[in-house]
Amino acid sequence: MDNNTQVILAKRPVGLPVSTDFSIEKNDLPTLQDGQFLMRTLYISIDPAMRGWMNDARSYIPPVKLGDVMRAGTLGEVVASKHPDYEVGHFVTGWTGVQSHAISNGEGIFRVYPEMAELPTFLSVLGMPGMTAYFGLLDVGQPNEGETVLVSGAAGAVGSVVGQIAKIKGCRVVGIAGGLEKCRFLTEELGFDAAIDYKNEDVKKAVKAHCPDGIDIYFDNVGGEILDIALGRINRKARIVICGAISQYNNTDGIKGPSNYLSLLVNRARMEGFVVMDYAKQYKNAAMEMAQWMAAGKLKNKVHIEEGIENFPEVLLRLFNGNKMGKLVLKV
Amino acid sequence: MDNNTQVILAKRPVGLPVSTDFSIEKNDLPTLQDGQFLMRTLYISIDPAMRGWMNDARSYIPPVKLGDVMRAGTLGEVVASKHPDYEVGHFVTGWTGVQSHAISNGEGIFRVYPEMAELPTFLSVLGMPGMTAYFGLLDVGQPNEGETVLVSGAAGAVGSVVGQIAKIKGCRVVGIAGGLEKCRFLTEELGFDAAIDYKNEDVKKAVKAHCPDGIDIYFDNVGGEILDIALGRINRKARIVICGAISQYNNTDGIKGPSNYLSLLVNRARMEGFVVMDYAKQYKNAAMEMAQWMAAGKLKNKVHIEEGIENFPEVLLRLFNGNKMGKLVLKV
Repeated sequence: MDNNTQVILAKRPVGLPVSTDFSIEKNDLPTLQDGQFLMRTLYISIDPAMRGWMNDARSYIPPVKLGDVMRAGTLGEVVASKHPDYEVGHFVTGWTGVQSHAISNGEGIFRVYPEMAELPTFLSVLGMPGMTAYFGLLDVGQPNEGETVLVSGAAGAVGSVVGQIAKIKGCRVVGIAGGLEKCRFLTEELGFDAAIDYKNEDVKKAVKAHCPDGIDIYFDNVGGEILDIALGRINRKARIVICGAISQYNNTDGIKGPSNYLSLLVNRARMEGFVVMDYAKQYKNAAMEMAQWMAAGKLKNKVHIEEGIENFPEVLLRLFNGNKMGKLVLKV
Repeated sequence: MDNNTQVILAKRPVGLPVSTDFSIEKNDLPTLQDGQFLMRTLYISIDPAMRGWMNDARSYIPPVKLGDVMRAGTLGEVVASKHPDYEVGHFVTGWTGVQSHAISNGEGIFRVYPEMAELPTFLSVLGMPGMTAYFGLLDVGQPNEGETVLVSGAAGAVGSVVGQIAKIKGCRVVGIAGGLEKCRFLTEELGFDAAIDYKNEDVKKAVKAHCPDGIDIYFDNVGGEILDIALGRINRKARIVICGAISQYNNTDGIKGPSNYLSLLVNRARMEGFVVMDYAKQYKNAAMEMAQWMAAGKLKNKVHIEEGIENFPEVLLRLFNGNKMGKLVLKV
């Protein structure tokens, strides 16, 4: 068997992760047992949630243990099988981690079909980020036609899908992203009504200008000051969907809470969090609907691919410095 | 006609209100017109919300204008009438402000019946604080039997009713209040399962000890550090009811946002605000249900009465220094 290249969590990062927080090891693969298959990893999903899994804190899933392979969603090809349901040549996704190969008994594994979409799409719109956008917006946000939806991290894997689904649902959509190129991408390629460049604009003024009727849904991927600005412009019965807070994940002096939270009271509004894994039973139907939107040209997929499993620590940083557009994927 | 003693908002307070923020004036009453009645004020409701109305800020109702009578809920007796629906001797409540008399055309006025309850009760359990507790807990909080409800400001006008209704609904109820006397009142008189004295206990440890199964509903009247502590102990699908933030109202350096707000994400929980006036059409039914609970001895009313309209500025401060128990009322 091939050697297995694994990225191991060696230390718990303090602030931004650095390359010495990880070790890259080559280990032999154990012999395949009955009821198992061997997957060769083709693509690894690089997600903001990874930063939280590196911390030793109570959360919705346990942290990655020191010395364990770093947790990650993956897409790969079955290269050997003693499992009745998986044959060599099948493509599968699952949580097999940042490693070049994985042995699985099929638990948490889903087959994907390359005739349906390009493979990285199954880690993007048709994968976890797409599901996050779909259920976060539709189930938690509950958009109505004609409402204004503001989304931060709008050029990212989740935000870009949130905005497009909100457009499909007949909302006015305003995205916040960093840099002119991303903002152009939102309005010119994805059909957002407006985009705000937080790196070069006064976000407070721009939100006021582009949301003249206030904000009905704010889909928050970033936290921090932008969350406060959004809270300052919400309408009655607004919904703040808490999906993430990437501006806060690497803080070493604690998280900044939203000081405008009493706007929830004045506006009879709610702020609600969710975890996409709770919707697992509904993934299939959601993926079918999103695949139809993609086929109809209403939902576009943007994937940013970097190469080389040994580059994982550097590629991870692109999530935090904004040096990527759309879904970040590592090709093995 | 009598002179009318009025408490006027003379300045916008910075931090804690001081007596020079108000002026006390004696003015003649205008002549009663057809369709009007004259009310002599008997009791004035002193509420935390007053502090917000003194600020020149966008909120759920306009601020009190400088030079206007300070807004307040009141209870009084009709002493002269040219209105077909109100006779001398009728008792009424409304928003007639901090003044000894008021002329009204009946708008926003409700009759109350002294044979039903003692008069101050109509400013307490059967008035705005009772309605706030009732709709905040039942409509926003949605308690289920067996759940744990934590309430701050628990010996106050709203908190004391929240806890008692939660008990009626079969919940485990833990109250947070300042001082041993208030805590005893909660457990010994109102039937709370436990009380935490924030002035003399480590609140974080005490919440952990008294909510061993976590928190399903946190009804927040105080904000600040206690909100963060509660967020740190919520269960999945918990509801945080944002009713007020009395610890923050007099801050001169801004409001402290809840830095633990990402607990909403991890726990798929929501934080929601409300304004009791939205439920006006349902007040009557709620008051009838609460009067029944009172008659059955399940819901107790605690009113703290101070006297003298000219003492308004000093009495107001009891809201913030905790020097009162239950509903604070000013007897004219």
